[in-house]
Amino acid sequence: MSEHKNEVKLEDIVSLAKRRGFIYPGSDVYGGLAGTWDYGPLGVSLKRNIMNLWWQMFVDGRDDMYGVDAAILMNQKVWQASGHVDTFTDPLVECNTCHARHRADKLDDANKCPNCGQTGTFGEAKQFNMMFKTNVGPVDDENSVSYLRPETAQGIFTNFKNVVDSFYPDVPFGIGQQGKAFRNEISPRDFVFRSREFEQMEIEYFVKEENWEAEFEKWVELCKQWFTALGLPESSVHELEVPEEDRAHYSKRTIDFEFDYPIGREELMGLAYRTDFDLKNIERVSKKSMEYRPKDGSDSYVPHVIEPSFGVERALMAVLVSAYREDEQNGEKRIFLALPYDLAPIKVAVCPLAKNNEALVAKARDIYAMLKEQVGDVLWIDSGNIGKNYRKMDEIGVPYVVTVDFETLEGDQKDTVTLRHRDTTNQERVELSNLISESKKR
Amino acid sequence: MSEHKNEVKLEDIVSLAKRRGFIYPGSDVYGGLAGTWDYGPLGVSLKRNIMNLWWQMFVDGRDDMYGVDAAILMNQKVWQASGHVDTFTDPLVECNTCHARHRADKLDDANKCPNCGQTGTFGEAKQFNMMFKTNVGPVDDENSVSYLRPETAQGIFTNFKNVVDSFYPDVPFGIGQQGKAFRNEISPRDFVFRSREFEQMEIEYFVKEENWEAEFEKWVELCKQWFTALGLPESSVHELEVPEEDRAHYSKRTIDFEFDYPIGREELMGLAYRTDFDLKNIERVSKKSMEYRPKDGSDSYVPHVIEPSFGVERALMAVLVSAYREDEQNGEKRIFLALPYDLAPIKVAVCPLAKNNEALVAKARDIYAMLKEQVGDVLWIDSGNIGKNYRKMDEIGVPYVVTVDFETLEGDQKDTVTLRHRDTTNQERVELSNLISESKKR
Repeated sequence: MSEHKNEVKLEDIVSLAKRRGFIYPGSDVYGGLAGTWDYGPLGVSLKRNIMNLWWQMFVDGRDDMYGVDAAILMNQKVWQASGHVDTFTDPLVECNTCHARHRADKLDDANKCPNCGQTGTFGEAKQFNMMFKTNVGPVDDENSVSYLRPETAQGIFTNFKNVVDSFYPDVPFGIGQQGKAFRNEISPRDFVFRSREFEQMEIEYFVKEENWEAEFEKWVELCKQWFTALGLPESSVHELEVPEEDRAHYSKRTIDFEFDYPIGREELMGLAYRTDFDLKNIERVSKKSMEYRPKDGSDSYVPHVIEPSFGVERALMAVLVSAYREDEQNGEKRIFLALPYDLAPIKVAVCPLAKNNEALVAKARDIYAMLKEQVGDVLWIDSGNIGKNYRKMDEIGVPYVVTVDFETLEGDQKDTVTLRHRDTTNQERVELSNLISESKKR
Repeated sequence: MSEHKNEVKLEDIVSLAKRRGFIYPGSDVYGGLAGTWDYGPLGVSLKRNIMNLWWQMFVDGRDDMYGVDAAILMNQKVWQASGHVDTFTDPLVECNTCHARHRADKLDDANKCPNCGQTGTFGEAKQFNMMFKTNVGPVDDENSVSYLRPETAQGIFTNFKNVVDSFYPDVPFGIGQQGKAFRNEISPRDFVFRSREFEQMEIEYFVKEENWEAEFEKWVELCKQWFTALGLPESSVHELEVPEEDRAHYSKRTIDFEFDYPIGREELMGLAYRTDFDLKNIERVSKKSMEYRPKDGSDSYVPHVIEPSFGVERALMAVLVSAYREDEQNGEKRIFLALPYDLAPIKVAVCPLAKNNEALVAKARDIYAMLKEQVGDVLWIDSGNIGKNYRKMDEIGVPYVVTVDFETLEGDQKDTVTLRHRDTTNQERVELSNLISESKKR
């Protein structure tokens, strides 16, 4: 983490997200639940667009990728084998004065409690396991303990053999998964950046050991293509080659891709070469072979793994930060989200100039219906004045606003509409016959 | 539940689902975790297609619907207010001999333990709460208790005010959500029909009280359209008007749509008029007003609610049961899935007749690339003989198989391919220029 910060302030993003219906605090009406967030209508769309783009780019669009969707609740042996039960911990200290608990490594001054202000109040740090624990079935005992998965990756490894048995793909091949993961953060913070419930998009890419370096390089490039698709400026993304002493003991190479968030330069996603650590762990605990038998009759082997691990919320936050813009129009401050077309929750808004003229509204409705059919994600607006509508559409990142006016109905300009561009605020007169292709321009 | 059963056997579906990579037992490699299931590559696609179709039909495709995606972990007050903490229970009995626990109302003979066979061994039934419990944050006490949501509906109600504040929609309007829900079933059973972790698609449709009956009728029709889109035969879906004594006390009308599963006639989805019960509960516990203020200046009111509640797994299971077919081809038994085109994980498979002829394979690759670009969801197959390929494609419900042969390369039939139809096994010679439109035929 460096001190470089993006110019956009975190509170601007949080405020826009709540005001416009992207993201609300979880359980808001009951005073919240720390570290949880609810997606409103526009946030759901943005998140779906990001996740669908990923799925298309990394799973559906490739011949060497297989999707899975494993259960969140898994047999506790999964987390014993993976090492999470023993080592997935953060250091926890308790204040002897007010009994507030804090994450020891995140305290500015370990001698002063951020809750009550008392100094010299902490004892020694204890290791706190970050997995949420529950019991499955009607008996509460050690055998029924289960955890909310702290990562989706293990749901992939445990299905490695199933996928090979059903599909027998050639190596290299990958298995991808999207889904919720949970970490009982001692101090969740920074909006959706560090929350207790979040969404991951992970790939385990299975390779022959001798090919790992070449395959790793390919994934570095693929990750960069992904950042471009998200509209992240190249200058805001940084490759951190994680040095040996900071890597997991089994990893021979790890790159953290960092992004200049308003909170500083922080991890956007990770790319790790995990050797055969996970499949070997499964062999050890399950006593089942994880060997892959090549079709050419050569020796069987346990594949090695490259893991690109994407966080949906961190991607979404980077998208919002990258898209957030302020400029001045006619002497007034304007806020707009310059979202990439494919990610924008709404592509076009259609608006009749007057809402009490029947012919005008009918014409606008026809145009709306046509666009909805051909473009999808179209919004109808018939309230407020034009200027107010534009400001609202700018804030939710709508690339195009179509205004239907009296000239659309008759005269020289019949069957033309005003098309207004979000990023430039330029307006042009467009013929209806060209409207669909214009509205689909990226 | 009636005794009518679908001809398809449950074990045929389970076996096909595992063999072909639709659905595997959860945590399979570690001996499983009862009541959890993992989706393999084809299952993920089928599930995504069902969920995306629903989202398009009920959220994106409508002007009166808003999507949300609330956190799974919610403030415990949500479940106190909704009544789940007190009453979301099943009766549990324990065997005094072997200490196995069972759901009392599902025992064929309450005097004989299904585990050890002892008779007269049960004491009185206790109420067992079906919510999975966990603790959020670094302190394990009553205040940090949270639950895995047993339904997605409350994530909608708690966001009612947020959505109104951000979007101010006219009533009637609805909020839709898709997502995981969890119930600690005492005895999970019947494949994905009754599992401990499942996926819901729920809508709360907010109406003025006096309009509830008319709006309810509209939803009955919409549900039927949904069943048609899923390819469920009309004769397999039954409307059960739930009598007053079986309805939740706050519901004035409930319809259970039942389906003829192999396990009998069981609930596919529910449609309930819930009055203003949920929003009033939130008012009571949160002390915040849930009133809606009409734009025309008339009196504010708490909207009433119609709730169509869809289970993804139950829909998916009904789709598989409806699509499962056996017939005879050339004296051999054939199994095929007559999936609706939109739901089929793979729409077209492309196969070169010989895999060691370079020109043939190159031509087939070109055709594959063209279809992948234009149709999506295309599979490349170049192993096994043609007959074996057809059998495999039939079992995973691929509507079309394209075979590229030597005639495709030159002569009279140049630039034509064989297009084979799943349901009839008919084969026809199709010109490449028509292949895309033919492959998109529903």
